[in-house]
Amino acid sequence: MRILVLNPNTTASMTARIGAAARAAAAAGTEIVAVNPAMGPASIEGFYDEALCLPGVIEEAVRHERAGTDGAGIDGTVLACFDDTGVDAVRTVASGPVVGICEAALRSAAVLGTRISVVTTLSRSVPAIEMLTRRYGFADRCRVRATDIPVLALEDPASGATDRLRAEIAAAIADDGADAVVLGCAGMTDLASRLGHEFGLPVVDGVAAAVKLVEGLVSLGLRTSKRGAYAPPLAKAYAGELARFAPGSAPGLAS
Amino acid sequence: MRILVLNPNTTASMTARIGAAARAAAAAGTEIVAVNPAMGPASIEGFYDEALCLPGVIEEAVRHERAGTDGAGIDGTVLACFDDTGVDAVRTVASGPVVGICEAALRSAAVLGTRISVVTTLSRSVPAIEMLTRRYGFADRCRVRATDIPVLALEDPASGATDRLRAEIAAAIADDGADAVVLGCAGMTDLASRLGHEFGLPVVDGVAAAVKLVEGLVSLGLRTSKRGAYAPPLAKAYAGELARFAPGSAPGLAS
Amino acid sequence: MRILVLNPNTTASMTARIGAAARAAAAAGTEIVAVNPAMGPASIEGFYDEALCLPGVIEEAVRHERAGTDGAGIDGTVLACFDDTGVDAVRTVASGPVVGICEAALRSAAVLGTRISVVTTLSRSVPAIEMLTRRYGFADRCRVRATDIPVLALEDPASGATDRLRAEIAAAIADDGADAVVLGCAGMTDLASRLGHEFGLPVVDGVAAAVKLVEGLVSLGLRTSKRGAYAPPLAKAYAGELARFAPGSAPGLAS
Amino acid sequence: MRILVLNPNTTASMTARIGAAARAAAAAGTEIVAVNPAMGPASIEGFYDEALCLPGVIEEAVRHERAGTDGAGIDGTVLACFDDTGVDAVRTVASGPVVGICEAALRSAAVLGTRISVVTTLSRSVPAIEMLTRRYGFADRCRVRATDIPVLALEDPASGATDRLRAEIAAAIADDGADAVVLGCAGMTDLASRLGHEFGLPVVDGVAAAVKLVEGLVSLGLRTSKRGAYAPPLAKAYAGELARFAPGSAPGLAS
Amino acid sequence: MRILVLNPNTTASMTARIGAAARAAAAAGTEIVAVNPAMGPASIEGFYDEALCLPGVIEEAVRHERAGTDGAGIDGTVLACFDDTGVDAVRTVASGPVVGICEAALRSAAVLGTRISVVTTLSRSVPAIEMLTRRYGFADRCRVRATDIPVLALEDPASGATDRLRAEIAAAIADDGADAVVLGCAGMTDLASRLGHEFGLPVVDGVAAAVKLVEGLVSLGLRTSKRGAYAPPLAKAYAGELARFAPGSAPGLAS
Amino acid sequence: MRILVLNPNTTASMTARIGAAARAAAAAGTEIVAVNPAMGPASIEGFYDEALCLPGVIEEAVRHERAGTDGAGIDGTVLACFDDTGVDAVRTVASGPVVGICEAALRSAAVLGTRISVVTTLSRSVPAIEMLTRRYGFADRCRVRATDIPVLALEDPASGATDRLRAEIAAAIADDGADAVVLGCAGMTDLASRLGHEFGLPVVDGVAAAVKLVEGLVSLGLRTSKRGAYAPPLAKAYAGELARFAPGSAPGLAS
Repeated sequence: MRILVLNPNTTASMTARIGAAARAAAAAGTEIVAVNPAMGPASIEGFYDEALCLPGVIEEAVRHERAGTDGAGIDGTVLACFDDTGVDAVRTVASGPVVGICEAALRSAAVLGTRISVVTTLSRSVPAIEMLTRRYGFADRCRVRATDIPVLALEDPASGATDRLRAEIAAAIADDGADAVVLGCAGMTDLASRLGHEFGLPVVDGVAAAVKLVEGLVSLGLRTSKRGAYAPPLAKAYAGELARFAPGSAPGLAS
Repeated sequence: MRILVLNPNTTASMTARIGAAARAAAAAGTEIVAVNPAMGPASIEGFYDEALCLPGVIEEAVRHERAGTDGAGIDGTVLACFDDTGVDAVRTVASGPVVGICEAALRSAAVLGTRISVVTTLSRSVPAIEMLTRRYGFADRCRVRATDIPVLALEDPASGATDRLRAEIAAAIADDGADAVVLGCAGMTDLASRLGHEFGLPVVDGVAAAVKLVEGLVSLGLRTSKRGAYAPPLAKAYAGELARFAPGSAPGLAS
Repeated sequence: MRILVLNPNTTASMTARIGAAARAAAAAGTEIVAVNPAMGPASIEGFYDEALCLPGVIEEAVRHERAGTDGAGIDGTVLACFDDTGVDAVRTVASGPVVGICEAALRSAAVLGTRISVVTTLSRSVPAIEMLTRRYGFADRCRVRATDIPVLALEDPASGATDRLRAEIAAAIADDGADAVVLGCAGMTDLASRLGHEFGLPVVDGVAAAVKLVEGLVSLGLRTSKRGAYAPPLAKAYAGELARFAPGSAPGLAS
Repeated sequence: MRILVLNPNTTASMTARIGAAARAAAAAGTEIVAVNPAMGPASIEGFYDEALCLPGVIEEAVRHERAGTDGAGIDGTVLACFDDTGVDAVRTVASGPVVGICEAALRSAAVLGTRISVVTTLSRSVPAIEMLTRRYGFADRCRVRATDIPVLALEDPASGATDRLRAEIAAAIADDGADAVVLGCAGMTDLASRLGHEFGLPVVDGVAAAVKLVEGLVSLGLRTSKRGAYAPPLAKAYAGELARFAPGSAPGLAS
Repeated sequence: MRILVLNPNTTASMTARIGAAARAAAAAGTEIVAVNPAMGPASIEGFYDEALCLPGVIEEAVRHERAGTDGAGIDGTVLACFDDTGVDAVRTVASGPVVGICEAALRSAAVLGTRISVVTTLSRSVPAIEMLTRRYGFADRCRVRATDIPVLALEDPASGATDRLRAEIAAAIADDGADAVVLGCAGMTDLASRLGHEFGLPVVDGVAAAVKLVEGLVSLGLRTSKRGAYAPPLAKAYAGELARFAPGSAPGLAS
Repeated sequence: MRILVLNPNTTASMTARIGAAARAAAAAGTEIVAVNPAMGPASIEGFYDEALCLPGVIEEAVRHERAGTDGAGIDGTVLACFDDTGVDAVRTVASGPVVGICEAALRSAAVLGTRISVVTTLSRSVPAIEMLTRRYGFADRCRVRATDIPVLALEDPASGATDRLRAEIAAAIADDGADAVVLGCAGMTDLASRLGHEFGLPVVDGVAAAVKLVEGLVSLGLRTSKRGAYAPPLAKAYAGELARFAPGSAPGLAS
């Protein structure tokens, strides 16, 4: 099985870390293809970055999907940004399952505890994540907290990021009654297990959770539905710089 | 006052029709700047098109926002696609209010009737619109129906589109108990008033509703909040084709 | 265009202040008819006052509606009490749109920020406003706070009311993560703009928001639906002191 | 124990029927005081009538509450209109429990079945009742159906009303999967038991349910809370015809 | 009338206290049959105990139901554990109404105040009670607090339990704005009235509330619906120790 | 890895079929231990059977959990009944993850489509499953349909069960707009893949989905939280037949 782990930002060092985490989570027979777009933001920190990573994300998703017609394609996709940006669009071009790491983490934590606290980076991301918790049906058992650590600072051991995470987890337990914690950023992958042991409760990393969810669905032969909103894009013209994205054009991107 | 009416697709004839409808709705002192992106899909028919219209949409929004520093800028923005795609991203680069036509239409219908039926074009768009009705707080009083008219067919008088709209409105009244109707497509603008008279209930067009909502907010001096999720994008590098979108770069797009 | 701004309480000085605020918000061609009932409570501070202002409110609404048959009627109505009391009843006798200031303020704030805090006067009013936030679909993004300023004290500059408002707004930002604020009382009208500048976020006054919402709907020809719950009252006898309110009687109030 | 059963309309024949039903439901030691206001609508058929019954309703509630200071007062109140109009206002002037028949019927049906269908009279009342089902927490297990029988026609045996009720109950079972039915009108009181036997499921009449609920709360010494929104009205002036309703005035209505 | 008050745990002293409280609440003509199962946990403190009390609870419910065929049966049932465990299962074997004390307490408090705080014993029980508040439709107006008093400590006057209850009620009023309180444990029965007077708001005990609710329903002839999910168990084989529970077997438990 | 697949009913032939399905779904290194309780109902068809399967279910869960202290224990548990009965109780005695097949199926379908229809056996089970869809956060995108096939008839090829399933799936697509289907019974396991191909959309079987979900969580080292409601049962006495279930007793069942 081959799973595309698509880091929506263009920071290769983060892609490498995410890829390593995905590989650590993956089963023996699973090949992780960790990529990031060629174009777009170096990190996703709010709605503007979310929107502008999409062409690059879709381009990667389609490129790897198409490779599949040669017998070497991907079987499923992980979108490795906690805002789950682009997940609906990628589902329209993917045949296999497509999972965002926020949704995967919440659906995993849901069966391990009763009250879930998400600990994310920036305060400005909290409303977007709250919209996701409502969309996914977790509004009444999930709180979102921010550490105000910049996303890329998580790569810097001297940033004190881990201690700020610890402080928020402690507050989630004391003040929110959390019995399960979700790390709300793709860059926090390698901390989940360590923090879980420290605090004595499940700490879920979305990248790992999403890899396992996709592995499971793929191995059951379950694929993205093509009957409704995730049907392939309708053929039409695309103008300007993005013309190559036009669906249905013969040598087009998303035939 | 100058309002940017941003048709997210690249079909100029539709932009013209939307602009005309916006002008018909606008107050005497309001200038409507109806534009569409230079790049992107010819119509928005599902999540794929929604995602790929965003760079063009943002580019237009920023271009007109910036013009404002010269004293000729825009005061507010209407996003003229019923999926309200990009509304959160555009809010981060706009100082004035930014309104999607789905939200504007629902918030207008909300004070005119008790049960709202949205009549849109394609069945595949229904789940996306239902997500919006839930996000905007209308889940318990709003139903979404599709006519399965292609978006661009609305421009063709021979397509029978109006009669199919009539049939769905009649069904909404009979089966859903609707006492207010929202036309779920920017291309249906000029039909709202006619159908309202025919059926004897409010039929709301989102473009007109959004123009009035933006006019109102602008005239009160109310602007998009910059304290939370709609704060300006953080400065960072953007890679590849989209590098010019990098926020904060000196001559950059979204300084 | 003529808009009836109906202050449900009988305090003429407050009606004057509300009228002035409405006029400040209104477009050039809009005439504001600011009135209050001849009978009823001097202020609306809870469910009892809410109920007993209704005959006077309806009487004013009908009186001005009827004037319309002579060519000098009103085109729409603002109910200028934050409890939105009587809004459903007035819709049954009005042909134009009828908007309460709580609903108008929330629907305006909804497009400017992500988390809304309402700051109202009395603690005893909080549950009633929370019921409105749920009815209008804002339960998951809106908190209600009270300053415990009596309504009429807002007219007294020596009451310290503004400083108590400031303290609650500061708390809403710090504790609730508010990025938009709604002033939950018709008597706070003239403070919104000043406080918005002080705190650097949108502060919405319901009277102004409602005037703009009604102006917009009227100019689009949108009227209260007469197909469902807002159909005209059925003809019937009314007993006793209120007999003149009987709908449908020839010289009756609400024919 | 003495329970005030307050029919909000002014039709004495309906008050008599409601009183008889209440007495049939009451325990041996319970005295039912069935009254209707001296002023107001002959029937409650929509928001207009709902609003205009309130002064009369409050007047009766206060008059009987005050009698209590002489040792002959009431212990609790049933508001016998399915729209539960005035229930919040009456709670502010009552010391005992105050229950509307819609709320009582739904809370009773809630423990007898899993899916509740309300069968009411006029289609125009459906949205108001749906608002109540949402307020009371029943949105996800309750449907509202209308027979389009005028309220007063229920008093006329030749009107065919019962057969139309039967048809709607049959449809509720077949189409909604209802396993409990609520009769959505105070005028349907005497039919509940008969229809329950015919259809083999619980058919709840709100008047009877409310009498039992009030009896139970009174006998436990439970009274309306005076700490929050149901605290007594604040003293203030009332203008005009309704001046006698001013709270706190020495010989006033609601001291 | 004969009401079965079924304490799901096997601690006879608690059954006696619950029985006394039920008798204190019951009407003159009501016989309270207070029982506990012969088998199962000494107290219910979490999901494990909840599950394992069920066979004993059902056995008692069926035994007393059957006695009814001899003319001495029960007319309704109170399940006297605040987790309302087994309420759905008992409804399938009961003909009369079956009420859990959590549901009864919430539905009583619902008409007395606007914001309800439940004060229960163990923190570990809070999520289970929150699930119930959501099921019963109280999610938006109810908070759950724990005193961390062990259930059986409530029987020990030296445990300081009452003072800890007082502290939580005070916090509920100050921090949650509670205007009604529910005691979240069957063992707190005799404190409700005393605490209600101390704090000046309704304090509801579930046992008393449930007795009155069942009395009311029984006296109206309302019984558990047998049309849907509460229909009698289908006949089938039961294996092993529990074989005697097989429904439909001739001398079986739940024929 | 060793996963306990616990069929809550006592029908060994169904356990064998479920075990086979679980093995077909399991990864190479996963051992499936398919068991059923020694005591309890032959099938789970409603709340009564749900309750009475629990002692046997818990006994099996504890027995296999304990075996783990000898190095041969289980790593996670699937509860193979679509009512997810006992899932909370088993979580208190399990250290690994515990997943019900309804929750697993819904969480899998959630990422494959937008509107999910559950097709289950008996109409009487629909309300219980609807409660689960609400608990799990799927109320707004999930409908439940019944075929009225008895559970054990699924074992009989001559019963016509498959054709009735087909008819309901066709209706779900046509009438509910379903783009993903969940088979609402553990006995439908082997049909999912075949029906998925026939109808061209994902058809999810809960047993397979739950095996993959547990495999994934176990391989990430994620376990049931022991900080909140799923903490181990508190030590206490258990009376009568079930005394061996007393937690904490030295040779006890759930130490």
